[in-house]
Amino acid sequence: MAAECGSGNCDAWAARDPSGILSPYKFNRREVQSEDVSLRITHCGVCYADVIWTRNMFNDSIYPLVPGHEIAGVVTEVGADVKGFKVGDHVGVGVYVNSCQDCENCNSSLENHCSKCVVTYNSVDSDGTVTKGGYSSHILVHQRYCFKIPADYPLSKAAPLLCAGITVYTPMIRHNMNQPGKSLGVIGLGGLGHMAVKFGKAFGLKVTVFSTSESKREEAINLLGADNFVISSDENQMESLKSSLHFIIDTASGDHQFDPYLSLLKVGGVMVLLSFPSEIKVHPENLNLAARSLAGSVTGGTKDIQEMINFCAANNVYPDIEMIKIDYVNEALQRLINRDVRFRFVIDIENSFK
Amino acid sequence: MAAECGSGNCDAWAARDPSGILSPYKFNRREVQSEDVSLRITHCGVCYADVIWTRNMFNDSIYPLVPGHEIAGVVTEVGADVKGFKVGDHVGVGVYVNSCQDCENCNSSLENHCSKCVVTYNSVDSDGTVTKGGYSSHILVHQRYCFKIPADYPLSKAAPLLCAGITVYTPMIRHNMNQPGKSLGVIGLGGLGHMAVKFGKAFGLKVTVFSTSESKREEAINLLGADNFVISSDENQMESLKSSLHFIIDTASGDHQFDPYLSLLKVGGVMVLLSFPSEIKVHPENLNLAARSLAGSVTGGTKDIQEMINFCAANNVYPDIEMIKIDYVNEALQRLINRDVRFRFVIDIENSFK
Repeated sequence: MAAECGSGNCDAWAARDPSGILSPYKFNRREVQSEDVSLRITHCGVCYADVIWTRNMFNDSIYPLVPGHEIAGVVTEVGADVKGFKVGDHVGVGVYVNSCQDCENCNSSLENHCSKCVVTYNSVDSDGTVTKGGYSSHILVHQRYCFKIPADYPLSKAAPLLCAGITVYTPMIRHNMNQPGKSLGVIGLGGLGHMAVKFGKAFGLKVTVFSTSESKREEAINLLGADNFVISSDENQMESLKSSLHFIIDTASGDHQFDPYLSLLKVGGVMVLLSFPSEIKVHPENLNLAARSLAGSVTGGTKDIQEMINFCAANNVYPDIEMIKIDYVNEALQRLINRDVRFRFVIDIENSFK
Repeated sequence: MAAECGSGNCDAWAARDPSGILSPYKFNRREVQSEDVSLRITHCGVCYADVIWTRNMFNDSIYPLVPGHEIAGVVTEVGADVKGFKVGDHVGVGVYVNSCQDCENCNSSLENHCSKCVVTYNSVDSDGTVTKGGYSSHILVHQRYCFKIPADYPLSKAAPLLCAGITVYTPMIRHNMNQPGKSLGVIGLGGLGHMAVKFGKAFGLKVTVFSTSESKREEAINLLGADNFVISSDENQMESLKSSLHFIIDTASGDHQFDPYLSLLKVGGVMVLLSFPSEIKVHPENLNLAARSLAGSVTGGTKDIQEMINFCAANNVYPDIEMIKIDYVNEALQRLINRDVRFRFVIDIENSFK
């Protein structure tokens, strides 16, 4: 077992092959570099991406693979050139840990769109090592990709902001969805969808949740505060909402139709897609005749991430989470596949590696 | 022949059946109402819509059908409650001549998106008559849908602004394409495309024209002042432009691919579709991974139309036209189908009905 487990200064859980089953694993993280922040990880959210890469669904997984890109923790050491972070600070690390820092996108704080963006796990970093994520006891990150979490914001709740939160927040800001009184549709009520409802309400929007499952009504209305709940297969309900929404956030995974939702948008309305169906098919009338837009988005830049965390702290926006220990993670990933989570698993890392 | 020709106070040319062949036709226009502007038509542009409806391509044509919705002329009479127009003024009438004037869209000067919008021909007006367009000697229009043309702007050049011009201008303004120094791609170089190039240059953009035909290079660069010309089937040229454009205006009619163009947009870039292919198919990666948008558009509201005319006059933006007499219109429509026009036919109405 010792050999299988690896050795090094960092405790983790890793998947070893496309079965995706995670088990204990040790490896070495680098020493602190001049611009590094080193943090003791206290919490890590469980994202559907963790299912994708532990199971090699995109045929690019490098094993052993340590997933996790919704990381929250406490600073334990900083490099000589680090400004703005000190030992003891609460911080977060998200989906990426490096980028070229010199291209048009990096210079516009769109680091997530840098062609040399290094994601937090299963990516080759500039030093040639394969990045390893937050299902681990500590991590080092260049200060540019490290974010301050206010001391009174629970680290357990902060973790999901680093992926689910920013994935929803960035397109909402880009497409001006923060105008009080306007109307937002949210398709799907998983980790992303529930954050879209929360941001929508915090922005003062009227929020309608679309779901395939009547079982989500109670959660949508009473738990999350949505104003309206619609079963998307109910043609009468859908018809009654024609041309009524300013915005739609589409968090539905898997293949689905776009025209029935586009037709619900007002003139000039915007629907943002956050998932990756195999193909998008749209009738041009549903775009042209009401000057609608269909947009895509994927995570957000560093400026947006810090702004989003600050917004959540200032406006009491907190993800709803189910805390687990690391030894429950295989079951949690299976439950995530079964959509059996309300609404985000967060691994209690600090109490898992004792 | 007299019976076939009809009778009334207005000289026109009409299509009589789905052959689409136009011939002389007389009919009665209404008397001037309190908010009507009556104009002697001097010029009318020839739009591809005129092909569609004279030939019943959408199976909704009402014959006899008098096409024409790029109308310029001189005011001959105004109703008692008309303000801002007087006899002798140069004016234009575009794609629509009525709307409910009381809905959310009308109240936002999005009259073109009013569910009761009455288009300029082949539409049933609020008085029950079928509207008849600008291939005719005069027209009456409620003052809301009548636009001032500055006296020094040639009426012949003003005509195409009322459809081709506004169809391009409105999405460019909506999507902030008037920022000097940014880059615009224009797909197709017909009536709409050539206006997109002209607006692009007037806004200070760097303009790249995409065409299937090498024969358009000379026109694009030397006649219209585009900065770059690309044969869209040339994969090397297309590849060299990856992620380089801020905006794309797609004026290509007929079915075509979207992914090759979307991939040319920078992060956050917008591609606007102005035509009606049978279906839009897009790979979600081409939207999501660079946070791009695919938007639709169709003509513009009254506020935009007047603003666009004023912009053209102030910035010396003039459509390139080929003037014809009405008795050439059947040949002109056939040449339009064959894309054999540089870039808009305009009927010299005032010298056609003498």
